[in-house]
Amino acid sequence: MKSSQSLELRNPDQDVFFMRQALALAEEALYVPSPNPRVGCVIVRNAQVIGRGATQAVGSHHAEIMALHDMQARGLNAEGATVYITLEPCSHHGRTPPCVDALIMARPERVVFAHFDPNPHVAGRGMRLLREAGIEVNVGVCADLALAVNPGFVSRMTRGVPYVWMKIAASLDGRTALSNGVSQWITGLEARADGHHWRARSCVVLTGIGTVRADDPQMNVRHVATVRQPRRAVIDPGFEISEDAAILKGEGAIIFTGDQNAEKYARLTDRGVQVVYVPEESAPVAGRVRRRVDMRAMMKWLGEHDTNEVHIEAGSGLNGALLNADCVDELLVYLAPVLLGEGMGMAQLPALTKLEGVQRFEFTDLKQLGADVRLRARLPEHWRELMQKIHLTEYTTGQAL
Amino acid sequence: MKSSQSLELRNPDQDVFFMRQALALAEEALYVPSPNPRVGCVIVRNAQVIGRGATQAVGSHHAEIMALHDMQARGLNAEGATVYITLEPCSHHGRTPPCVDALIMARPERVVFAHFDPNPHVAGRGMRLLREAGIEVNVGVCADLALAVNPGFVSRMTRGVPYVWMKIAASLDGRTALSNGVSQWITGLEARADGHHWRARSCVVLTGIGTVRADDPQMNVRHVATVRQPRRAVIDPGFEISEDAAILKGEGAIIFTGDQNAEKYARLTDRGVQVVYVPEESAPVAGRVRRRVDMRAMMKWLGEHDTNEVHIEAGSGLNGALLNADCVDELLVYLAPVLLGEGMGMAQLPALTKLEGVQRFEFTDLKQLGADVRLRARLPEHWRELMQKIHLTEYTTGQAL
Repeated sequence: MKSSQSLELRNPDQDVFFMRQALALAEEALYVPSPNPRVGCVIVRNAQVIGRGATQAVGSHHAEIMALHDMQARGLNAEGATVYITLEPCSHHGRTPPCVDALIMARPERVVFAHFDPNPHVAGRGMRLLREAGIEVNVGVCADLALAVNPGFVSRMTRGVPYVWMKIAASLDGRTALSNGVSQWITGLEARADGHHWRARSCVVLTGIGTVRADDPQMNVRHVATVRQPRRAVIDPGFEISEDAAILKGEGAIIFTGDQNAEKYARLTDRGVQVVYVPEESAPVAGRVRRRVDMRAMMKWLGEHDTNEVHIEAGSGLNGALLNADCVDELLVYLAPVLLGEGMGMAQLPALTKLEGVQRFEFTDLKQLGADVRLRARLPEHWRELMQKIHLTEYTTGQAL
Repeated sequence: MKSSQSLELRNPDQDVFFMRQALALAEEALYVPSPNPRVGCVIVRNAQVIGRGATQAVGSHHAEIMALHDMQARGLNAEGATVYITLEPCSHHGRTPPCVDALIMARPERVVFAHFDPNPHVAGRGMRLLREAGIEVNVGVCADLALAVNPGFVSRMTRGVPYVWMKIAASLDGRTALSNGVSQWITGLEARADGHHWRARSCVVLTGIGTVRADDPQMNVRHVATVRQPRRAVIDPGFEISEDAAILKGEGAIIFTGDQNAEKYARLTDRGVQVVYVPEESAPVAGRVRRRVDMRAMMKWLGEHDTNEVHIEAGSGLNGALLNADCVDELLVYLAPVLLGEGMGMAQLPALTKLEGVQRFEFTDLKQLGADVRLRARLPEHWRELMQKIHLTEYTTGQAL
């Protein structure tokens, strides 16, 4: 049925308008469905939204099913409607039945999704099945915004490693602590709460043994409400962590170590702490040799263990090592309006003699948070790679399928 | 004459609307009238602008005269009109006749200005003369925005010293240069051009002998078009500057020194360089004693010599000394999206052992400039003091006059 009303919906501005509503639903679920992607869905007929849904916690309904239920609860059906989804609907039996089947049953006139399933083995299959069922499909509306909602899921599916951001709170002159280590509180309440928002959306909060020893942090989510706590992980090459460390309390703590200590291992694993051996490499840092786990091997392990997004909150030594190993995609920097002069820096990096060739991030967002500001900056090469993975042209035209 | 149209103009929103137009005119003249304030004026009748003007270069017309001329050139007069001015009109014979006389001759129904003449000896006199001539006067519309256009003029008139900002270009982790001194170019073209905008609006660009020795900068305005170059000043306690230094070329260079050298003095003053002896103080900085001129005495000299705004562009040693002497009102920080690790800091400051009591600026503006960001942060105590000077309640009510 091609009515004039439904043709009206081919308007690209309207597609963007409704896809943004679906994205807003996905963002509302930011803390919830991990390791599944956050997905939003709106069903639209005659420019009216007749169903809305977002992905629920793991094992429960996906966004499309929620939106179809919402529509049915209003006593409506999908005839002549367009379904906007922020991700290609799933076509396989996972923890839930395939959403494509439910969509085909509902028989909308058209399905629009932001980007393909990033899993290259299934990408495009949802589209093909819908088209074979006679449903019109359009792909690529707001793909960049949808990637920003699920960079970790896309990264894990396409690169095999999580999407990683590094949180740093510092003075305007880049000092994260005074020379004597005092750092509480350079930035204020709003910045701290925002930091907890980023913890809450992550799968794993990662820090180093130095920070654990100095501050004994819990590294959990407290300043925002969440239904799910991320796992906490410590990089501890020498397996030196105190078994009383606050970060080991609660479920799902991880220790990445290069050291063997069978008794300590047994005691901790008995308590539910996951101790992961990672190959070690020794690296000269700031003049002395430090033990380091292989950062890339660690990220690969995380990617293999359902980790979409990693939130790093560590000291300058570990920050430098992670940056140096190219394990960081984005910086999340909170700056307070103070100058401290002396103090700890953001990251220990190899000394440079020239500025040519220095790795340049790109600022994506500036925001005032109380008295402080937040700057987000990402590595453009990493982002471009992810964008390319979800923009495969043979899929978007549908010719190759 | 109180028509319904003119009463309609008593609407506070309309007052703000037209005062913002006058402020925009003042901002267009940002580089021009120094050491006079930048003033804008619009004449409005029946919600229509019938005259616009801004202060011209020193010795030429003020904004009110320009707006009256503009109105007359359109064959109109000020009967029943409201005149919006960003500053109280002058009432004394300076380089030009008093604007108050011209306004009284033009006979508008009402005059609205943003704030009083900051000179406490004449503040309120313009208002009184207008009222005595039967013209209604309102004061205080957009006073904060008007102060932001002329913080230096207000500062000089009320505190006897200029309004001072410190420009710093750095990496995201606060490094202004690599450890070997390389700093060109951490930030990009847009940030550099914006820096020249701030040079262009200043009366004096101030740097230190260290920067002159290291980079031999010109410190003039090149990346924006200007009809007026600021003076360039070097703090050179030991009077060590090379007489070939680029900063001494052109008119109006100043050297602040604590050293006597009659022959060098004679040679430089012959060329038109102004050499100013400033009391010296020795200060231990970063472990060693450095010669320092008395920063506050220097600022007082600048205030006494027609300096409204000072643009500091110096190294971390001098930055620290100026901050420490409480000679800085605002930070103008450009950050590039790179992490450098090692390198020069923004300012050498006395080591702190705790964060309580550290001097806090307040962010007033965040802006993306090409690949970089600009953060402005001012000292709230300094700003409040200036706001208080132009907000004297006995003036705004007019009761005491």
